[in-house]
Amino acid sequence: MESRVFGPRDGALEPPGDGLGRPGEFPYTRGIYPTMYRGRYWSMRQYAGFGTAAESNRRYRYLLDQGVSGLSVAFDLPTQIGYDSDHALAAGEVGRVGVAIDSIEDMVRLFDGIPLDRVSTSMTINATAIILLALYVATARRQGVPPRSIAGTLQNDVLKEYVARGTYIYPPRASLRIVTDIVAYCDRELPAWHPISISGYHIREAGSTAAQEIAFTFANATTYVQAALDAGLDVDSFGRRLSFFFNAHNDFLEEIAKYRAARRLWARIMRERFGATEPRAQQLRFHTQTAGSTLTSQQPDNNIVRVALQALAAVLGGTQSLHCNGRDEALGLPTEEAARIALRTQQIIASETGVANTVDPVAGSWAVERLTDRLEAEAAAILERIDERGGALDAIESGFIQREIQEAAYRAQQAIESGESVVVGVNRFATDDGGAIEVQRIDPAVEADQAARVAALRSARDPAAARAALDAVQDAARDATNLVPPIVAAVEARATVGEVADALRSVFGEYRDNR
Amino acid sequence: MESRVFGPRDGALEPPGDGLGRPGEFPYTRGIYPTMYRGRYWSMRQYAGFGTAAESNRRYRYLLDQGVSGLSVAFDLPTQIGYDSDHALAAGEVGRVGVAIDSIEDMVRLFDGIPLDRVSTSMTINATAIILLALYVATARRQGVPPRSIAGTLQNDVLKEYVARGTYIYPPRASLRIVTDIVAYCDRELPAWHPISISGYHIREAGSTAAQEIAFTFANATTYVQAALDAGLDVDSFGRRLSFFFNAHNDFLEEIAKYRAARRLWARIMRERFGATEPRAQQLRFHTQTAGSTLTSQQPDNNIVRVALQALAAVLGGTQSLHCNGRDEALGLPTEEAARIALRTQQIIASETGVANTVDPVAGSWAVERLTDRLEAEAAAILERIDERGGALDAIESGFIQREIQEAAYRAQQAIESGESVVVGVNRFATDDGGAIEVQRIDPAVEADQAARVAALRSARDPAAARAALDAVQDAARDATNLVPPIVAAVEARATVGEVADALRSVFGEYRDNR
Repeated sequence: MESRVFGPRDGALEPPGDGLGRPGEFPYTRGIYPTMYRGRYWSMRQYAGFGTAAESNRRYRYLLDQGVSGLSVAFDLPTQIGYDSDHALAAGEVGRVGVAIDSIEDMVRLFDGIPLDRVSTSMTINATAIILLALYVATARRQGVPPRSIAGTLQNDVLKEYVARGTYIYPPRASLRIVTDIVAYCDRELPAWHPISISGYHIREAGSTAAQEIAFTFANATTYVQAALDAGLDVDSFGRRLSFFFNAHNDFLEEIAKYRAARRLWARIMRERFGATEPRAQQLRFHTQTAGSTLTSQQPDNNIVRVALQALAAVLGGTQSLHCNGRDEALGLPTEEAARIALRTQQIIASETGVANTVDPVAGSWAVERLTDRLEAEAAAILERIDERGGALDAIESGFIQREIQEAAYRAQQAIESGESVVVGVNRFATDDGGAIEVQRIDPAVEADQAARVAALRSARDPAAARAALDAVQDAARDATNLVPPIVAAVEARATVGEVADALRSVFGEYRDNR
Repeated sequence: MESRVFGPRDGALEPPGDGLGRPGEFPYTRGIYPTMYRGRYWSMRQYAGFGTAAESNRRYRYLLDQGVSGLSVAFDLPTQIGYDSDHALAAGEVGRVGVAIDSIEDMVRLFDGIPLDRVSTSMTINATAIILLALYVATARRQGVPPRSIAGTLQNDVLKEYVARGTYIYPPRASLRIVTDIVAYCDRELPAWHPISISGYHIREAGSTAAQEIAFTFANATTYVQAALDAGLDVDSFGRRLSFFFNAHNDFLEEIAKYRAARRLWARIMRERFGATEPRAQQLRFHTQTAGSTLTSQQPDNNIVRVALQALAAVLGGTQSLHCNGRDEALGLPTEEAARIALRTQQIIASETGVANTVDPVAGSWAVERLTDRLEAEAAAILERIDERGGALDAIESGFIQREIQEAAYRAQQAIESGESVVVGVNRFATDDGGAIEVQRIDPAVEADQAARVAALRSARDPAAARAALDAVQDAARDATNLVPPIVAAVEARATVGEVADALRSVFGEYRDNR
């Protein structure tokens, strides 16, 4: 097919725009690669995981068979907040919103038959990110894969947990130290690994506007970057491995503009504020997920439509990676069929619509360029207000960011209740016969099985070795040496996720949101 | 919501472009209305009809209940080619691809409880368009509605039947005379009726390129316009009521550009070639249908995705009216559920994506503006070649247009067979478990019932009155007076569709494609 990298019309006296640039050139408004999808499609990742490691392993193999280009692991809530499956606080949640992982044995089973040097894996894990990274490294070793050759992304964006997602354990400043240890470790040991995926997704899901999504994400991002700089790391090195995660919401044109504005603003921040000179450290790389909050339990097939349109916006906005939600995600975890349709949505956009043949096709559009300019300016202004408040940590601790999101969410909810915002099938075009669909159910036996398995592991292992390894984790936590190596050693000594989390709890304490 | 009618950036030294204009201004590249969908959404029409008039009436009431803004009637093949349901050539086809209409009694039943002064109706009918228009006028009278207040569109584009769709009866030049009679009648009697919808849809479905779709449609359109001028009609009057019908195919950006290019080219043709000075006679008004030929019987839910993306292109391209295909249309007629999802697709695009808030949002995009220019130039060049061959009638009779379409279709098919063009679920990402869906079935009893009903009508009516009315139709056909009034009289005397068609056959003869 002919080339479709378009610039201004020949001979037109059109200025290049204030910071539009060409694709692959600073400030990357038009994309981080000169040829974008003409070189390679975005990564098609479908977030998945439920029940036991063995069940999730079957789903991953199915998805790989259907053509996903990378894995994306969902963990259950106990794993995310550092409780083993037999802990009292895990009751009722084991294997529900993701896979239950208690130990190295579960992790090995999760990737059974999936060589870790031949797949890239994204893990949605935050408060316990350091433990799951350690488990991934240990699993690679068990497979005989050198850790240096593993590729993937750890969400590890704990700051947004305090403002939007809620799966935090330790106080913010301790969490930031753990993040920084991970960034430092990956910078040294895991060249193909993204140690953090700074996430606007959940901020948007919590009800923020598009400009807030950019701004609050970047407020957290600049905090991580400053912490890494303070730890003596080189911005041109770790900066190349930062990644981001945005929402693909309903407002089609605004969303396209949002990705473009975010790329430009981030490039400027990295260059001007942090002095990054390496282009890859200035480039905003991001994963996108369609907006779960826009899906409806009513008439679930309508969600296929919403997801397709949101996904197209992400692709027109130049995403590096994409998850399409299943039509049934307002009802439960996606069935295999729903996951397949979601992946097919990506494949149809890539292979049938031709949009991947044109780099940044909206460029020059008066509407989209103006929206891009406006969103960048709005986000920069919000970011400035947070900086005036002493940065993200202070703005989180004072509840400022949380309040701003709540206010935006309240306005959005009011617009739906007044009918000003239409939700098809809900506040308009409702029907009685919504089209029933099959829903994925978690076998209630999973919890008991998983609890029995972790108990068996504890009795089978060398207790002294496990104890010593956990003590080493505590020591590292106290004396501020990098936590990743002792945690890798602990999970290899078959210490559990809950035990490692507890070791850190004993040093860092737990955070309670008392606002 | 704020205004989103964007122009060039203030102060930018950007030329207005060669013929871009503003929305609502010549040459209407950016849309025929200054505010487009900010004033009113496109008409949401879902093409429907199957089985008997009573069954189809139930579907229309369902669709109106679900929020369609107009009706769109599908007729069965016997109705389209002028055979009554009890004719030997109708066997096996009665009520299959659309509703079976034999007489005024069927037509009255079709619109039972649907006041014709309060709904607008599009009818996909060509060779027998004049008979169905007469039936619609007669039905309005039966309802007590003055014909002057009916609103709708008759497809009535018989020239494209010879090149793409196949439901012709009479030779091309006789057909053209019938079309001209309809245009003249509507110009005088039916101010809110579009007497013709000149259709690229089926040309594209037959395998043409996007540029050919524009060009062959306009070749036919200029032939109709010239015939009307030759009949003494005023281009500024009948030109306001011409309408068009395009395909929304897969290539997202090209399709958006296609609609824009078509608007500009048509405005220039009407002004420069035919001397239209009335703006509404220069404006290209069009209906769009998503591309049936892109749907797959494999994994039918994937079609929901295709349809959503195609529909979005039509909306971004400024369509006046839209039909979204049902996910099951590669398998059969759409079920009620499939029709509902298709309508919801339109409603989600209108109400949830925000694209209706911006007029021609792609304007200024270097990619889309260049595609627009290119498609206009390509279509104009093809049109010139047809003019050199003496116009559409000669190019049809010599088989030129048919051959050009066949060659394009052959190339497209080869690209699929070689794998260069990907069809998701067919030549890539095929699966065994395609997701079975329910399919609409036509009751086999329909044919016998319908045949009995038309036979009963013939014995119940006044035979002499029917015969005299049919003789008057023949006389009008011979002496070139307008055919519409005698056909209205004939259907009111309960002459059947087949009988009126036969009366015309006896004068005009039948066309056989002997190429």
